[in-house]
Amino acid sequence: MNGTLYLVGVGPGDPELLTLKAARILGAVEVIAFPAPREDSALALEIASPHLNPDAARVPIPLPMSIDRAIGRTAYNEGAQAILLHLRAGRDVAYLCEGDPLFYGSAMYLIDRVGREAEICIVPGVTSLTASAAAIGRPLAARNEMLKVLPAPLPDAVLRSELLSTDAAALIKIGRHFDRIRALLEETGHLGGAMIVEHATTGKERITPLAAFAHTDRPYFSTILTYRGAEAWGR
Amino acid sequence: MNGTLYLVGVGPGDPELLTLKAARILGAVEVIAFPAPREDSALALEIASPHLNPDAARVPIPLPMSIDRAIGRTAYNEGAQAILLHLRAGRDVAYLCEGDPLFYGSAMYLIDRVGREAEICIVPGVTSLTASAAAIGRPLAARNEMLKVLPAPLPDAVLRSELLSTDAAALIKIGRHFDRIRALLEETGHLGGAMIVEHATTGKERITPLAAFAHTDRPYFSTILTYRGAEAWGR
Repeated sequence: MNGTLYLVGVGPGDPELLTLKAARILGAVEVIAFPAPREDSALALEIASPHLNPDAARVPIPLPMSIDRAIGRTAYNEGAQAILLHLRAGRDVAYLCEGDPLFYGSAMYLIDRVGREAEICIVPGVTSLTASAAAIGRPLAARNEMLKVLPAPLPDAVLRSELLSTDAAALIKIGRHFDRIRALLEETGHLGGAMIVEHATTGKERITPLAAFAHTDRPYFSTILTYRGAEAWGR
Repeated sequence: MNGTLYLVGVGPGDPELLTLKAARILGAVEVIAFPAPREDSALALEIASPHLNPDAARVPIPLPMSIDRAIGRTAYNEGAQAILLHLRAGRDVAYLCEGDPLFYGSAMYLIDRVGREAEICIVPGVTSLTASAAAIGRPLAARNEMLKVLPAPLPDAVLRSELLSTDAAALIKIGRHFDRIRALLEETGHLGGAMIVEHATTGKERITPLAAFAHTDRPYFSTILTYRGAEAWGR
């Protein structure tokens, strides 16, 4: 009988923000797989490490930094094969996901590839979105307001139109798009209500109003939350 | 010295989906406050109950079902006063929030009212959104796709325009708006990719493609997730 693949959200950074379910599963499975974009960076593994079964085998899944779809497909095919070797031998595997497995993560690429041969169990986690809102102490959105999650690589025209038609938005995957995003937020009237949160819930957490963020600075592991009319939300 | 107010996300329903941090705090505080919309319904309390300090005082905060803002303000003022009595006596208080405290919750109304007198600590939680995606086994959104969270009471014209311009959306607060929302999703080409999840992560969980949801049925505690092009997501 094949093992089960657990896709486990490990939350935004603080190891105490794993769920009880995630901690239980990670303490029990025989194999821990995790995305390893580069040799030195496996954030999901770092977050989960206090909770891992110390005897578990560790299977890094090298992820390409390339945006080429064909290269990505090959990498996920190989990762799925590495995981399937364990599942076919009857061993349960947990695949670690930063934040939540199905919120802009890599876990979705495994569901299709592994799901035909093995049981899959998905454990949702705390996202960087709600963690960033908690750090700021301000709602993501409230009452009947819409909330838009906007990946920064979207084209200017799309971002402009989406920002103009909402009071609340979260901008993710900012990286090298920071200058564009800052300009678009200013143009669409969001600069005053925008906060940038870096490394939410970790020792390196830093919260800065976007208007005060130094132009020469570059944000890391960051989310920008904007909320127009933020001064009135509690009333 | 005044006590601390913890705004604690208790997750979507399964008591094992509390975070380790939430469970630690709820096991320690002397006072547990919770929203009680009606005599018989205190979902956040029900979810958290296995983790509560058994000796803690319990303080229900009656929430009005009315959408009148003035009535709401009075209720939150009174709730904040009830909590402040304990904080001023030096007792720590945890206020339980379904899902996450700052994702469309009632906790935001307490921040302003209590924050001037006491320390506030916000513990983010798993939302019904990611929990519903986990139940379906399908991403909320991926790659550079936007995700819109749309409260069902928004006007038709707004919902129509927002649905037409996105592949991925989550519809919340559906209740009596179900027929309108179903019609709008069909009109905007989302019916095929829409799933309705009721009571996510609880024993009463039920997942139905929206197209197959009986017209005479009424969904409870539900979220509709729609994802156009869902058949191609894993590739």
